[in-house]
Amino acid sequence: MDDNGEMTDSAVSSSVSDGVGVLTLDDPDRRNPLSLATMRAATEVLRTFGENPEVRVIVIKAHGPAFSAGHDLSEMVERTVDDEREIFAACTDLMTAVHDVRQPVIAQVQGMALAAGCQLVATCDLAVAADSARFSTPGVRIGLFCSTPMVALSRAVGRKRAMHMLLTGDMVDAATAVEWGLVNTAVPAADLESTVAELAGRIGRFSGDTLAIGKRAFYDQIDRTEPEAYAAMTEVMATNAVTCDAQEGISAFLGKRDPVWRS
Amino acid sequence: MDDNGEMTDSAVSSSVSDGVGVLTLDDPDRRNPLSLATMRAATEVLRTFGENPEVRVIVIKAHGPAFSAGHDLSEMVERTVDDEREIFAACTDLMTAVHDVRQPVIAQVQGMALAAGCQLVATCDLAVAADSARFSTPGVRIGLFCSTPMVALSRAVGRKRAMHMLLTGDMVDAATAVEWGLVNTAVPAADLESTVAELAGRIGRFSGDTLAIGKRAFYDQIDRTEPEAYAAMTEVMATNAVTCDAQEGISAFLGKRDPVWRS
Amino acid sequence: MDDNGEMTDSAVSSSVSDGVGVLTLDDPDRRNPLSLATMRAATEVLRTFGENPEVRVIVIKAHGPAFSAGHDLSEMVERTVDDEREIFAACTDLMTAVHDVRQPVIAQVQGMALAAGCQLVATCDLAVAADSARFSTPGVRIGLFCSTPMVALSRAVGRKRAMHMLLTGDMVDAATAVEWGLVNTAVPAADLESTVAELAGRIGRFSGDTLAIGKRAFYDQIDRTEPEAYAAMTEVMATNAVTCDAQEGISAFLGKRDPVWRS
Repeated sequence: MDDNGEMTDSAVSSSVSDGVGVLTLDDPDRRNPLSLATMRAATEVLRTFGENPEVRVIVIKAHGPAFSAGHDLSEMVERTVDDEREIFAACTDLMTAVHDVRQPVIAQVQGMALAAGCQLVATCDLAVAADSARFSTPGVRIGLFCSTPMVALSRAVGRKRAMHMLLTGDMVDAATAVEWGLVNTAVPAADLESTVAELAGRIGRFSGDTLAIGKRAFYDQIDRTEPEAYAAMTEVMATNAVTCDAQEGISAFLGKRDPVWRS
Repeated sequence: MDDNGEMTDSAVSSSVSDGVGVLTLDDPDRRNPLSLATMRAATEVLRTFGENPEVRVIVIKAHGPAFSAGHDLSEMVERTVDDEREIFAACTDLMTAVHDVRQPVIAQVQGMALAAGCQLVATCDLAVAADSARFSTPGVRIGLFCSTPMVALSRAVGRKRAMHMLLTGDMVDAATAVEWGLVNTAVPAADLESTVAELAGRIGRFSGDTLAIGKRAFYDQIDRTEPEAYAAMTEVMATNAVTCDAQEGISAFLGKRDPVWRS
Repeated sequence: MDDNGEMTDSAVSSSVSDGVGVLTLDDPDRRNPLSLATMRAATEVLRTFGENPEVRVIVIKAHGPAFSAGHDLSEMVERTVDDEREIFAACTDLMTAVHDVRQPVIAQVQGMALAAGCQLVATCDLAVAADSARFSTPGVRIGLFCSTPMVALSRAVGRKRAMHMLLTGDMVDAATAVEWGLVNTAVPAADLESTVAELAGRIGRFSGDTLAIGKRAFYDQIDRTEPEAYAAMTEVMATNAVTCDAQEGISAFLGKRDPVWRS
């Protein structure tokens, strides 16, 4: 995508190697703001990864000392409410794309993740942080409450902790983020890249169809009542069970051999 | 409100100073029971604070060694089911008022918070406890399961932990309450008042309109499915962004100066 | 039930003593697989316990080194999708029965709980584990994503942690399971039986009607919006309050004597 002017403007880069699609926020001098163009470009990268059979796992990472400072505030002054709607709709499209793509998405958080940046981490299926990473939803400090980030944040860390972050804008360190379930694990910064690569590699060796079925099922069931969730998931598992990869996986397990996936 | 007989009977006092509205449960000898009159008076204080522009943050605290022992059991014997309905409806009105008022509400928990007292702590937007505070939903021990407290409790601490508290009536200490997300932090008893005052002061310096928009948005989105929550919050953020205080806050941030709020 | 051939085939045994109904997964050599027959038998035992007034608390435990390895995979190869539907419907029936029975259900987890075995632990009202117990949802490794286990798992441990277990199949040790809220407590293996017995005994001394009202109320309210939950629970508490056992319990408390329950 290097020959695409908009993509370069948007400060997003992407690559695919060894089955891992990497989306990189790439405007380190400005702390990787999620400008309208950047959010649209990132969404496009994710949707493209979603249709690329070579991509088995997606990693979202960032260049420079910050993961992302959140929205590009310079875009938000002296705008109409329709302009603002466009920005937040694009942000929601990005978060929706993270859940919609068939592959698991891992956030690799090397530095500060603020506001929509924190939301992006909360939205990813998995997140690994450097132990120096920090998280905050500081919108309240500039009069703009982090109301869209709170959707992902409150579902990740629960009510009281989300409220504390939202009402104070205080920073949360990586160890606390692990304790609260905002990220899965925190590792020394020097080990971040290899830890994520190892995790992506392990997941990427599973059946792609199975991962896609499971990920879609997860977000399908999470917002349902428990009886409705079971009704839906019973059907998902029954149809998953008769797929080629499940039949191969079960047979391989019973035969004490390694499975050979079709997908 | 001192000249109001009912209010005095109800053992609730209130004050406003430095932008903080303080609601105090004030029947320490009886461990601050939430009698019908007390719940109604507390609700009235909250609603009055909600309409008072001088009140920027609300603190709910209590006099004496206990925060609250819960409902006044003497009101519950030999009553009709309609009498009981009146009591629990008044309790739900109080909890609803905590979420409805435009200002953030902080519980300052210096001692035992039992049953509806524990529910009140779980319901507040934020909670700070003395490290000697304790929490319990002991209704099962007197044959009256804590079914209304469980609404707030299970949403704060999750299923297994709520079930343990509800099925056993066991006490949970402050450190555990922090670990479970029932309260935000626990501090030495001697530091409780100053810790809450500092927290309230920090939050109270933010834009009142922004806090009100954010708090309402939080409880609006928390019960929705994620797509519905995003649809609602996208609109909340877009309209928040064009308010005077957000425009001032963003401009101040970009101009590296302190904002001056209108609200 | 010893004279019931199906029950013996199904590798489930049951007993009632001192008010505790014990359901034991009893095929230790095969790591207690949840075969179709076993799930149906376990569901039948639970439903029978539910109608037995002598049973005040239910414990689900297992013989041998493993709690349960999950579904019987040999039943899942070369089957029609209708066959698979039958299996997962029976599994959901079992989980539903755990929530439907009037008595609290405690999982006593002495070893590995995998896939549907992990789901069963997540589904029980309470769970106590040996500190050597381990938990995993490894379906992804055999191409069959743990989509029905995820319903219970994600509601117990939250999104990121559930996703980690589901996407990797990694084992979680007992201490981590406690930290995440999947089980209530972990104790040395030698103390597991006595810890569960003590817990069951304590709960079993409460009013059976009160426990039944509270348990039903818990699962009734947990999937509702907060206003709907309060509307339902206000009515539950008002009617609970006028029951004989609540009136006795409150009177006994006010009179500083021990209550005598009718149920």
